[in-house]
Amino acid sequence: MSGSLAGRRVLVSAGGTREPIDAVRFVGNRSSGRMGVALAEEARRREARVTLIASNLAVPAPEGVEVVEAPTAADVEREATARAGADVVIMAAAVADYRPVETEDAKRPKDEKRWQIELEPTVDVLRALGEGQRNGRLLVGFAAETGENGLERARQKLVAKKLDLIVYNDVSKRDIGFDAAENEVVIMSANGERRIDKAPKEEIAAAILDEVERLI
Amino acid sequence: MSGSLAGRRVLVSAGGTREPIDAVRFVGNRSSGRMGVALAEEARRREARVTLIASNLAVPAPEGVEVVEAPTAADVEREATARAGADVVIMAAAVADYRPVETEDAKRPKDEKRWQIELEPTVDVLRALGEGQRNGRLLVGFAAETGENGLERARQKLVAKKLDLIVYNDVSKRDIGFDAAENEVVIMSANGERRIDKAPKEEIAAAILDEVERLI
Repeated sequence: MSGSLAGRRVLVSAGGTREPIDAVRFVGNRSSGRMGVALAEEARRREARVTLIASNLAVPAPEGVEVVEAPTAADVEREATARAGADVVIMAAAVADYRPVETEDAKRPKDEKRWQIELEPTVDVLRALGEGQRNGRLLVGFAAETGENGLERARQKLVAKKLDLIVYNDVSKRDIGFDAAENEVVIMSANGERRIDKAPKEEIAAAILDEVERLI
Repeated sequence: MSGSLAGRRVLVSAGGTREPIDAVRFVGNRSSGRMGVALAEEARRREARVTLIASNLAVPAPEGVEVVEAPTAADVEREATARAGADVVIMAAAVADYRPVETEDAKRPKDEKRWQIELEPTVDVLRALGEGQRNGRLLVGFAAETGENGLERARQKLVAKKLDLIVYNDVSKRDIGFDAAENEVVIMSANGERRIDKAPKEEIAAAILDEVERLI
């Protein structure tokens, strides 16, 4: 639907954050950024003014979109909070929920000993945005879960974080989700859920934005 | 020098390994694979038969090269050892020297507590190849170091791991080295060293293969 988001400001986060352990090592995750990039691209096609908060993308950012680099969870928190006045906020990035308590500036040399790293929880940006001043802003989150109760945990997140939509995918399945071109998701709102069978991320993006438009 | 490696078998490792913590998190490093890919490409241009051991490349593998996927340090160890009969072995990948002692199959749920991860040293593949049966094989390593004594530590590695060449770069400098299109290196052998000022990785690759050819 070309033009259906004309005049709307859409903020999308994409990719996966990296939390530095030292000068070369980090704690990362398997997100490529494809899903968030597809969402930004589709929102732009619908003529929204799109800002993409980009965390270590493995794919190129789309044309015609403002790109803000945010390599770490702290960067995403700062940049998303500064732009939370958008009409639609879609947090598609895999933001680390733990980061090393201490970061060494230099590369730690190898020895033959074991090495303990202590991780601490990061700020839950999605929850902070959900609990903050909303002014009619629509908030969409993602839930990458594994195992049998994943769908139930995703619904709990929808409620607990005060989201309008949550997009659930089971990252224990191979060939979909993280780092893949296709995905298979369930889009959930307070009113119900819509299951999208395995499809290219571009199609999933269009389905998510259709649901967003229904709620605007 | 087109054809200057005709008939030679060249094995190159490229990228950076990822050592899984759980279903989505891993300990990674900042290598894009560009340097190793440039080496594989240049070796193929010189008509070598090239095998590329690819660890999570952020750039496409070159055409005309056999590609073997090796996401973790254990994979690199297995695949490189199996192919160590090549005439020239260039280990350009950033292979993790530590990995989590335990890996969880599922995604660990978030709670509000700190979390300890224990890391153990991995097998040093480069050292194992250096100390193994050589049969005239030429062995090239990389040393990504930080700080003042980096060059000296690289020279110690050259000797300790019984390498023919080591390529040193200072990864604490910005805009070069890891995850960048350019690099600035010192190529060291038992006979001396050659400094290459900041240049595209393709030029660095050509300089390294020139040194390899001098030693064959």
